[in-house]
Amino acid sequence: MINASIITIGDELLIGQVIDTNSAFIAQQMNLAGFSVIRRVAVGDDYNNIRTALDEEKKYADIILITGGLGPTADDITKPLLCEYFGGKMVVDEDTYANVRHLFENIFKIPFTERNRMQAEVPDICTVIQNKKGTAPGMLFTEKVGEREKIFISMPGVPFEMMAMMTDDIIPYLKQKFTSTHIVHRTLLTAGVGESMLADMISDFENNLPKNIKLAYLPSYGMVRLRLTATGENTIAVEESIDEQFAQLKKLTAEHLVTDVDETMEKTVGKLLIQRGKTMSTAESCTGGYIAHLLTAMAGSSAFYNGSIVSYSNEVKEKILGVKKQTLDTVGAVSEEVVKEMATGALKNINTDYTIAVSGIMGPDGGTTDKPVGTVWVCVGSNEKLITHKFTFRFDRERNIRLTALNALNMLRKLILAN
Amino acid sequence: MINASIITIGDELLIGQVIDTNSAFIAQQMNLAGFSVIRRVAVGDDYNNIRTALDEEKKYADIILITGGLGPTADDITKPLLCEYFGGKMVVDEDTYANVRHLFENIFKIPFTERNRMQAEVPDICTVIQNKKGTAPGMLFTEKVGEREKIFISMPGVPFEMMAMMTDDIIPYLKQKFTSTHIVHRTLLTAGVGESMLADMISDFENNLPKNIKLAYLPSYGMVRLRLTATGENTIAVEESIDEQFAQLKKLTAEHLVTDVDETMEKTVGKLLIQRGKTMSTAESCTGGYIAHLLTAMAGSSAFYNGSIVSYSNEVKEKILGVKKQTLDTVGAVSEEVVKEMATGALKNINTDYTIAVSGIMGPDGGTTDKPVGTVWVCVGSNEKLITHKFTFRFDRERNIRLTALNALNMLRKLILAN
Repeated sequence: MINASIITIGDELLIGQVIDTNSAFIAQQMNLAGFSVIRRVAVGDDYNNIRTALDEEKKYADIILITGGLGPTADDITKPLLCEYFGGKMVVDEDTYANVRHLFENIFKIPFTERNRMQAEVPDICTVIQNKKGTAPGMLFTEKVGEREKIFISMPGVPFEMMAMMTDDIIPYLKQKFTSTHIVHRTLLTAGVGESMLADMISDFENNLPKNIKLAYLPSYGMVRLRLTATGENTIAVEESIDEQFAQLKKLTAEHLVTDVDETMEKTVGKLLIQRGKTMSTAESCTGGYIAHLLTAMAGSSAFYNGSIVSYSNEVKEKILGVKKQTLDTVGAVSEEVVKEMATGALKNINTDYTIAVSGIMGPDGGTTDKPVGTVWVCVGSNEKLITHKFTFRFDRERNIRLTALNALNMLRKLILAN
Repeated sequence: MINASIITIGDELLIGQVIDTNSAFIAQQMNLAGFSVIRRVAVGDDYNNIRTALDEEKKYADIILITGGLGPTADDITKPLLCEYFGGKMVVDEDTYANVRHLFENIFKIPFTERNRMQAEVPDICTVIQNKKGTAPGMLFTEKVGEREKIFISMPGVPFEMMAMMTDDIIPYLKQKFTSTHIVHRTLLTAGVGESMLADMISDFENNLPKNIKLAYLPSYGMVRLRLTATGENTIAVEESIDEQFAQLKKLTAEHLVTDVDETMEKTVGKLLIQRGKTMSTAESCTGGYIAHLLTAMAGSSAFYNGSIVSYSNEVKEKILGVKKQTLDTVGAVSEEVVKEMATGALKNINTDYTIAVSGIMGPDGGTTDKPVGTVWVCVGSNEKLITHKFTFRFDRERNIRLTALNALNMLRKLILAN
């Protein structure tokens, strides 16, 4: 089994100003390729701390993937540090120079400065990995530690540059270099059941799993993802064994099962609609366009999604969705009647087969004794049928918005399946 | 200077199935309180790797903050491991038991099982930190390493449970326990200028910064955040010195300055509108509700934001926004004419002072020779004036959506300021 470790570099990671999405992507790609990521470390733009991280991680891993700290500005110290760490000297790499110059003059259309020239310098003891999406090149170093050859690969920190390099160059290189253990994941998504209840439902199954298969619970926003991971040398045996266990797990969780592939709730709903040639719309008050965003963030969503009325003000509810003023005045915007009228208005005005309408109080302000923060009415419907449900969430604004969106999508999923 | 390290535990972090937002939050809170986070480490639910992380991190830090691995399911091994690591034995904690039982019976309204009882067990050698938002208690351990007392605090991995514990209990405790170095950050946001250009503009400034002040560049989605960080023992001296430098930095970047506080573009726009008592709406095609979501994710946005028409289909553009069929047929949905008609329709139908309308091709499909993927038309306007701009982004769908939203908000910001 080949172990890998990820080092991310940048002060911004240690003061919490940005969230580290790079590590997640790198880990994902490595796992799919059959490598095991055993540690992830983040350190600041600090000479000693970066050196310590290199010293430490090579004790635990054969592959050390490094990202960040390669940009053109003074707080990026990684490149010269790596050069020194592996005992090289800086030289201009011709291919990198041509790439940087081309990007500046033809793509960015901004002047090429001396500072940018430095971006074409690399340590003379590394193998350069060209950056197709930006200026900072990737660099591959090797070092003998005891009997083992350790591989260090440094990538830029800009996510889409790192991603292209990882997918197009680094993964193919590592796969070719190492005969890796076969790792297979199978994931299913449940909704409407808590982690402990689920654990009780499948405890016999879990206790009887073969040694090479692990089960993990990944709870998020009212849903729980269950993941089986199998490892082994024999591809066919690993696949057969995990398929058998996964079939059993699906049976045990059938009542709460949303999907048996590793995909999101919105993807599941989208696929159902496309299979049936149906369309949907949304009428969103409290989620403020978040359901629309979840759906349209997926490529190809225009095949089933026509649009949303984000009716954040009552005026929009009345004028565009046709909610009656009288309804708003008597029962208020957060009510069963209003979400039904919103749904009816959306079906008519956006002209779709299905719709979702939501209205609620997301917090931190706006709650009352009758309708505390977290009170949400959801209506899902078609021209034949409207189904409503009242939720009471107990969380912060962000979480309430996400929970509302995912529970509403799950209600729609059930309605589509029932038809 | 008191150093801290963060250990996050969970296989899901190492296969990349979830993004680690907990570390960012913890780091943020620690920095605000004057502690320096020097390392962040993620390890899987693996006995040896967790022990190794504890052994390692106590070499570098005085405070070790641990999150994850405390849930009720079999893949959570942290609690018994910590018990053994610090040499204690598991006992039921009365307060925790009462809390867990109360949550199950009165809040979750689901049966209390034997598995949940285990959640009330804690090592007898820790100080328990009650979890006000969930079942898994926090635990504080101390260990003498050489001359120094090291503090280990274990928190649940569920973000909102961890956040409440961090803010309400752990930060106040640590502040009281340690006299910490004063750390001050000042951050400004620029838009419309690249990182290298900016670096050239302020290189003299950067080279002349006092030793206790650091400058960092944080580029994201067409904007660059610049952060000054000052450290020192004397609160007043640190504040004075950073204020002086920050004033200079603002002058140097004035042309591209969006805001001089650490806030988002959407927050800046929202504040401007509230100050002036104005309202806005959006008409979104290619961003699919993302601009609406950015705005409504902020508490209090109903004070200036009335709603959005997410016109993902041409039918919605015509029927609800009043875009002319002839315009769509002759110049196509991604055109200056269409975003102008969308903006006019939004201003009229949603009845606001300002509006943003966007239409573009986000990819990966849908591009043509004339209008490749990344082509976006934006119109911002009021009843007096419409301003349009064509952008050509070169990225993936997610990035194109974000770039469109942030550039459109920046255009609106400039229009509001010009009025």
